[in-house]
Amino acid sequence: MTAIDQLETPAAIVDLDRLENNIERLQNYLDSHGISNWPHIKTHKIPAIAQMQIAAGAAGITCQKLGEAEIMAQAGIQNIFLPYNLIGQAKLERLMMLAQQIQISVTADSAFVIDGLGKAARQHALNIPVLVEFDTGLGRCGVQTPQQAADLALQITQQSHLVFDGLMTYPINEHTGKFVQQTKEILEKDGIPVRRVSVGGTPQMWTAHQYPFVTEYRAGMYIYGDRYTLRSEAMKLEQVAFYVITTVVSRPTPERAILDGGSKTFSSDLLGLDGYGMILAYPDARLYQLSEEHGFVDFSACSEKPAIGDRVTVVPNHCCSVTNLFNEIVAVRNGIVETTWPVAARGALQ
Amino acid sequence: MTAIDQLETPAAIVDLDRLENNIERLQNYLDSHGISNWPHIKTHKIPAIAQMQIAAGAAGITCQKLGEAEIMAQAGIQNIFLPYNLIGQAKLERLMMLAQQIQISVTADSAFVIDGLGKAARQHALNIPVLVEFDTGLGRCGVQTPQQAADLALQITQQSHLVFDGLMTYPINEHTGKFVQQTKEILEKDGIPVRRVSVGGTPQMWTAHQYPFVTEYRAGMYIYGDRYTLRSEAMKLEQVAFYVITTVVSRPTPERAILDGGSKTFSSDLLGLDGYGMILAYPDARLYQLSEEHGFVDFSACSEKPAIGDRVTVVPNHCCSVTNLFNEIVAVRNGIVETTWPVAARGALQ
Repeated sequence: MTAIDQLETPAAIVDLDRLENNIERLQNYLDSHGISNWPHIKTHKIPAIAQMQIAAGAAGITCQKLGEAEIMAQAGIQNIFLPYNLIGQAKLERLMMLAQQIQISVTADSAFVIDGLGKAARQHALNIPVLVEFDTGLGRCGVQTPQQAADLALQITQQSHLVFDGLMTYPINEHTGKFVQQTKEILEKDGIPVRRVSVGGTPQMWTAHQYPFVTEYRAGMYIYGDRYTLRSEAMKLEQVAFYVITTVVSRPTPERAILDGGSKTFSSDLLGLDGYGMILAYPDARLYQLSEEHGFVDFSACSEKPAIGDRVTVVPNHCCSVTNLFNEIVAVRNGIVETTWPVAARGALQ
Repeated sequence: MTAIDQLETPAAIVDLDRLENNIERLQNYLDSHGISNWPHIKTHKIPAIAQMQIAAGAAGITCQKLGEAEIMAQAGIQNIFLPYNLIGQAKLERLMMLAQQIQISVTADSAFVIDGLGKAARQHALNIPVLVEFDTGLGRCGVQTPQQAADLALQITQQSHLVFDGLMTYPINEHTGKFVQQTKEILEKDGIPVRRVSVGGTPQMWTAHQYPFVTEYRAGMYIYGDRYTLRSEAMKLEQVAFYVITTVVSRPTPERAILDGGSKTFSSDLLGLDGYGMILAYPDARLYQLSEEHGFVDFSACSEKPAIGDRVTVVPNHCCSVTNLFNEIVAVRNGIVETTWPVAARGALQ
């Protein structure tokens, strides 16, 4: 029986009670509003957690990269949504391999992507569901107008082995409904139904029911939580299930302490926050700078300060980036290690 | 025979000719000035490259974390410098295991760390060389004054199984010489010699000979290079051996393109630079934003713009953070893949 205090640092910890509660809370909310749950596994990249999400009632999982989907499919996940433009013969072949094993749907935001998908699907005589991605202000991928969305939907229906399955965007906001409505109106004239409207985002997750056109939801960070999620008020501190334990390895000055975790532990993600993490026992401390394996903390605002060798627990800015830096995540319950999960889909960039 | 163009993206590439030249260039420079070369493997985390560095004449390698040192020792590296405060029984036991197999020296900047090292070394009847870390303005670890450095050196000599081996700092600058000189003067009164003065940093590497007190040098990024190294003018663009190949997966607007690499490919390290990388064929393009698996590029300043499906090659801001995000690095020569290296010490955070 290993207690948290016995773990070497830096260690990435998941509190299982909180994790289970977080999975259940969103599932219940989406269930109660008739919205299908497609949790995004980019946050954890761990098949065991994906299986917990499915067991709790998720319709399937969302993966961001094909490599993640392959690892999750290998682990027995049967329904995967891959909202990414897949390009190039190698990736299209891999998609077809997956489509022979599991139910998988993808997205497209250009004729180029649709043509590639259509050709591969035809060659393999597989029917691939495709959603059209639209941009609601993030300024990333996605078509810019309802007419463009409708044009691509029509192109999908014209490919013999593609199935137009609906619309996808991230995040959801006040522009989303109008875009969906206008696209639907154009498509109705051609008798093309929009079966799925997939939106996502943990910060906005509790507002999903305010958008009656939404049929499914993709949230990632809701299982863990982090400073970014806390700032959005989508989660409370006592719900945060993910943190990093570090050791104070130096106290070079009365005000400064150095932790044994830096940008290779916490990532450099700031996301508009001040500093790189929140130290639980020292809320007034500032983790103000990172080098690769050191965290610089200013304890000048704290009346009590840690000594060399003390451990401090950090809630990082962005859990998705932090899990991606660890080889394994330690799952604990009541402070006792229950299991250790390799981050199986870590580095699945392709 | 695989050509670069056939690799799936995003792919992290090392140009072997340039890598070999970079290894040789620094080795020759340090050799010509009688400075011992201890390259920092945090940049590559690949045993094969460490072996190339040793074969070229490096006295040993530098690792930042104990886990890195274990992996390098397993791969046959016999001389390792670990400039990190090792704390806690588990890590000290692991250090003693390593010290039984290879030559390893460490650093300390507090009596706490020295006491821990001394006790472990005594228990195992091993002699551990320890350098005192001092702070020359980085504001990370390290004692603040020559008197503190001398006090710790004396404490090391008083531990039966520790050997005071010298002084260590990062980076080197105009304060370093005075600090070393004053510490030496204090220690000379006690008859304690300062055998090693270890400094580091790729940006300053070609100035090492200007500091006659330096006995050894730790550089990491010099093997690969990146935008940060280019800005420092320690390397030229035609010497940069490391880059990331990506594919344009979306062209949502006439000016914007989206790449299939984001913060999980390039890291969020800015290091004071504008944007997250330099696109080789489009020097006026700005990689202005990253989400986890997407890179946002503004091509408005470029007369020619890439199409969906085109590949673009990116020199990232910080090679050390990028290699740490990839499962493997593809080594090429004249555009042809020669080998693929797993990033063996990736995630060796403990």
